[in-house]
Amino acid sequence: MQELQEFIREVKDFPKPGVVFKDITPLLVNHSMREQALQSLISLMPDRQIDVVVGVESRGFFFGTLLAAALKCSFVPVRKPGKLPFQTLTQVYDLEYGQDSLQIHTDGIKKGDKVLIHDDVLATGGTAKAVCNLVEALGGEVVQCNFLMELAFLNGRDKLKGFNTKAVVTY
Amino acid sequence: MQELQEFIREVKDFPKPGVVFKDITPLLVNHSMREQALQSLISLMPDRQIDVVVGVESRGFFFGTLLAAALKCSFVPVRKPGKLPFQTLTQVYDLEYGQDSLQIHTDGIKKGDKVLIHDDVLATGGTAKAVCNLVEALGGEVVQCNFLMELAFLNGRDKLKGFNTKAVVTY
Repeated sequence: MQELQEFIREVKDFPKPGVVFKDITPLLVNHSMREQALQSLISLMPDRQIDVVVGVESRGFFFGTLLAAALKCSFVPVRKPGKLPFQTLTQVYDLEYGQDSLQIHTDGIKKGDKVLIHDDVLATGGTAKAVCNLVEALGGEVVQCNFLMELAFLNGRDKLKGFNTKAVVTY
Repeated sequence: MQELQEFIREVKDFPKPGVVFKDITPLLVNHSMREQALQSLISLMPDRQIDVVVGVESRGFFFGTLLAAALKCSFVPVRKPGKLPFQTLTQVYDLEYGQDSLQIHTDGIKKGDKVLIHDDVLATGGTAKAVCNLVEALGGEVVQCNFLMELAFLNGRDKLKGFNTKAVVTY
């Protein structure tokens, strides 16, 4: 679904010089294309039951909630530290320089849950791998990691080896 | 729809001592109740066309995107400073101590757009009023501000005088 690219705006030097940011807000504004993007995400999924969609803060919340509604299943947010109020599990992961971490509510995933992880973009894969670790640590099975976009030149798939990884658009 | 309260978890002393935080993640986890909450939000709306749902970072993104899908209209996020990559309009507003600010993409709202503003909770009303100002500054008409919850003891409605303000559950 490469026409999706027409609704992804490239913003140069954001958030820092040299980076070309892929802005999905034009896609969110357009109801028809937003719905097509949702259907494209669903079409990439294996024919298996999903119990939980995990959406990654915060651009993963947009299509994450829509996916959970379409699949009639749970939605669980993964958030930056200090945002989730209940008992959390934390995963620290490496960035290009330094570290970052993500949290999930410990009661968000039950042992044996079949989980779809969603985020807007697959870049280096560090974030997605951290989310996979959180889901598995709680006993969930990662059925797929899906993304609107994949920045293939950053080789994020290397970090997600062993996981079913799909993206609607590849750059 | 007071049974919604059973899916809103009260977490004491979050994010700081003395505050009882209303956690909507149990509602997000339960597909059936999440759908009922969405239908309750819709049932509170006036019988008017909506062109844009504005969702407020970041818990307003959950039901904000679902509302936009249900209403078959645009979704536009309002975010904290530095998060939106394109041209933005900024609104500064007062907190109990100090100030905060919010941004919207200038191309998110067109003159004359009928706008529904959504957030999870109406507390002091400062955030919601700032979002109303952003929408109106871009020429949009605020048809309603709706919320899952209203903390009535914080008198947020006082700040939203003149705006149609609704909440599914009132505390």
